[in-house]
Amino acid sequence: MQYKISDKMVNMKPSAIREIFKSLGTPGAISFAAGNPAPESFPVKDLAAISADIFENRPSQALQYSVTEGYPRLREQVKARIREKFNIGTPEDETIIVTGGQQGIELTCKVLCNEGDVVIAENPSFIGALNSFRSLGAKIVGVDVEDGGMNIEALEKALQENPNAKLLYVIPTFQNPGGFTTSLEKRKAIYALARKYAVVILEDNPYGELRFRGEDLPTLKSMDTDGRVVYCGSFSKVLSAGMRVGFLCGNEALIQKIVVAKQVEDVHTNIFFQMLCSEYMDRCDMDAHVEEIRALYRAKCDKMLECLDREMPEEVKYTRPEGGLFLWCTLPEKIDSGAFVKKAVEKNVFVVPGTAFNCDETKGSPSFRLNYSMPSMEEIEKGIKILADLVKEMLA
Amino acid sequence: MQYKISDKMVNMKPSAIREIFKSLGTPGAISFAAGNPAPESFPVKDLAAISADIFENRPSQALQYSVTEGYPRLREQVKARIREKFNIGTPEDETIIVTGGQQGIELTCKVLCNEGDVVIAENPSFIGALNSFRSLGAKIVGVDVEDGGMNIEALEKALQENPNAKLLYVIPTFQNPGGFTTSLEKRKAIYALARKYAVVILEDNPYGELRFRGEDLPTLKSMDTDGRVVYCGSFSKVLSAGMRVGFLCGNEALIQKIVVAKQVEDVHTNIFFQMLCSEYMDRCDMDAHVEEIRALYRAKCDKMLECLDREMPEEVKYTRPEGGLFLWCTLPEKIDSGAFVKKAVEKNVFVVPGTAFNCDETKGSPSFRLNYSMPSMEEIEKGIKILADLVKEMLA
Repeated sequence: MQYKISDKMVNMKPSAIREIFKSLGTPGAISFAAGNPAPESFPVKDLAAISADIFENRPSQALQYSVTEGYPRLREQVKARIREKFNIGTPEDETIIVTGGQQGIELTCKVLCNEGDVVIAENPSFIGALNSFRSLGAKIVGVDVEDGGMNIEALEKALQENPNAKLLYVIPTFQNPGGFTTSLEKRKAIYALARKYAVVILEDNPYGELRFRGEDLPTLKSMDTDGRVVYCGSFSKVLSAGMRVGFLCGNEALIQKIVVAKQVEDVHTNIFFQMLCSEYMDRCDMDAHVEEIRALYRAKCDKMLECLDREMPEEVKYTRPEGGLFLWCTLPEKIDSGAFVKKAVEKNVFVVPGTAFNCDETKGSPSFRLNYSMPSMEEIEKGIKILADLVKEMLA
Repeated sequence: MQYKISDKMVNMKPSAIREIFKSLGTPGAISFAAGNPAPESFPVKDLAAISADIFENRPSQALQYSVTEGYPRLREQVKARIREKFNIGTPEDETIIVTGGQQGIELTCKVLCNEGDVVIAENPSFIGALNSFRSLGAKIVGVDVEDGGMNIEALEKALQENPNAKLLYVIPTFQNPGGFTTSLEKRKAIYALARKYAVVILEDNPYGELRFRGEDLPTLKSMDTDGRVVYCGSFSKVLSAGMRVGFLCGNEALIQKIVVAKQVEDVHTNIFFQMLCSEYMDRCDMDAHVEEIRALYRAKCDKMLECLDREMPEEVKYTRPEGGLFLWCTLPEKIDSGAFVKKAVEKNVFVVPGTAFNCDETKGSPSFRLNYSMPSMEEIEKGIKILADLVKEMLA
């Protein structure tokens, strides 16, 4: 039969990154494409021991249906941790567990946006978030980013021109794909504008704990005095990405609606792994573990920067991240970035073209994203050399 | 701030069942309300051993991001099993893993229905599915069920009157909440009408393997010659409900769109538990395990029927299921069923009022749903006696 696909889904395509991810089986492939945490960052032995204990002592609870809001003890632990680390949470706020940050983003949009409503986002931004907004029929308006975050004048213009803007999506810390961190001044300006134009801010902070240089800046949620900010966090980059456990913190009234929306999407998040996260936080030293990941990513990021500094022609510009998983490279005008990415694939090196992160899918991009958490030191050395040689070849 | 909730979510309430579920902590409470599988049906020892093995030998794969379509080996096993058990699958079909049957239902609607489009469903039907359709702005048109399935004339009338009907949602086997099974004749008629009126059928079959009496009937998907049926199955009732692993099988073109929709909801289903399901199917005797669950539910259902036959006044009518988890009780007109359910709660016995399953939320219902998989034999004995005494009291 001929299917009539819904208007919101008919033009949706799989994420370019997830598709690249599939072709990574090739022997000798070097991937700077994925957003994967380093496998050596998973605390496997601790998780294995706790898992055995849960099967031994609480199997019925861990394998049975559970409540949509999440495992109560884990919710308490998350609340305590985001209060301690990021000064987040008021008596009016509530915290729930979601199936990865991805679900938290999608649910927030579902609860706030009608089809045709506008979501304002940094341009470029996280493709998974942009696609989730698109899948709900929301219209994305991008605000170009510059050093230190969104261009604030452009943000105000976007808010003025789009009275049906309901949501402002930002990744203020170690942005994906840009790798930059929004300055304190811009954070304050963004919050003030959201207030002036009555939009909700969705603050996505999956990398917040992974600062390996510089000083923490206050989260937008920590500045929130009127319940305007929904904060989305995740265990994906600190314990395991494959388990799909994240969380949302926001005003109780909004979170209650999000719980209803979650209930009809997957009833609740895998309860065994919620209990595993909770026990991990009770029994193990999460801070020490995070410190190890920071040291690992600091070393990998330094390695990548060192190779880039040494190998890349100076016409190529790149960010120097203070944390997170990515850096962002911009090619000189002479080089067609689409052709560059394709040629890199031919040489078995995978990067994500900047176009994948554009709010406007029809636009081009001179940039590409590099991930340093996943590849080994040897792969970084070898892969950056290949990319640099390719740039030189294309400049010649 | 004042939140503007989206039109599709603004009137959504939490599922009555999930809310009842929360108040079950009361000591001495007897619950016939949940849709939970029996905890003794979880193969805990096997799952624990396999889990230890996965942590030992393949931790990086089991804790890392994975592909949206699902763990390849598990997809192959699911394909083989639904072919063997239910004669499902053509070369044009594809099978993907979803985060519980609930996600499969929601995604199918998301891909096919615009806001305002109609989903036709059995009336009464599974509240989780109805709420997921509502959360996407779809309009639900209910077709009353009778012995042997939907009233076929009413179904044709509904299809005629709703040219924007995109989806026909049915639970042909051991229906929730009705406990009945759609007859072969009606299955054929439903398929023929879906064809005539060009709608997709979503066949939800979470209980299909749990037949403890009578003979299997062909699934709608096994009759599907033109890719019209999307089949939704689950491991929730045979391995673990809390892990949230289900699957969809449908025409490849449709499944590809569903994969894109899933990607932006949760990237992929918990990969550790996908591997656990897969290893379980490889190493253990799934058929023997399912046979044990059938024997358990046969005994529990028989016990509940025996108690009902003995205790209930004959004015109370109930179904005699051949499988699944539920039976459906209808009170005589004299008794206000809403008041009955409330009084039962006061006596610490929980059932789900029939109104929770109505396609039209404003309508009443003389019925309530009883679950026999979760309570113990003693709880069934005691709880049914309390309900029967309450009926007698209210009839007096």
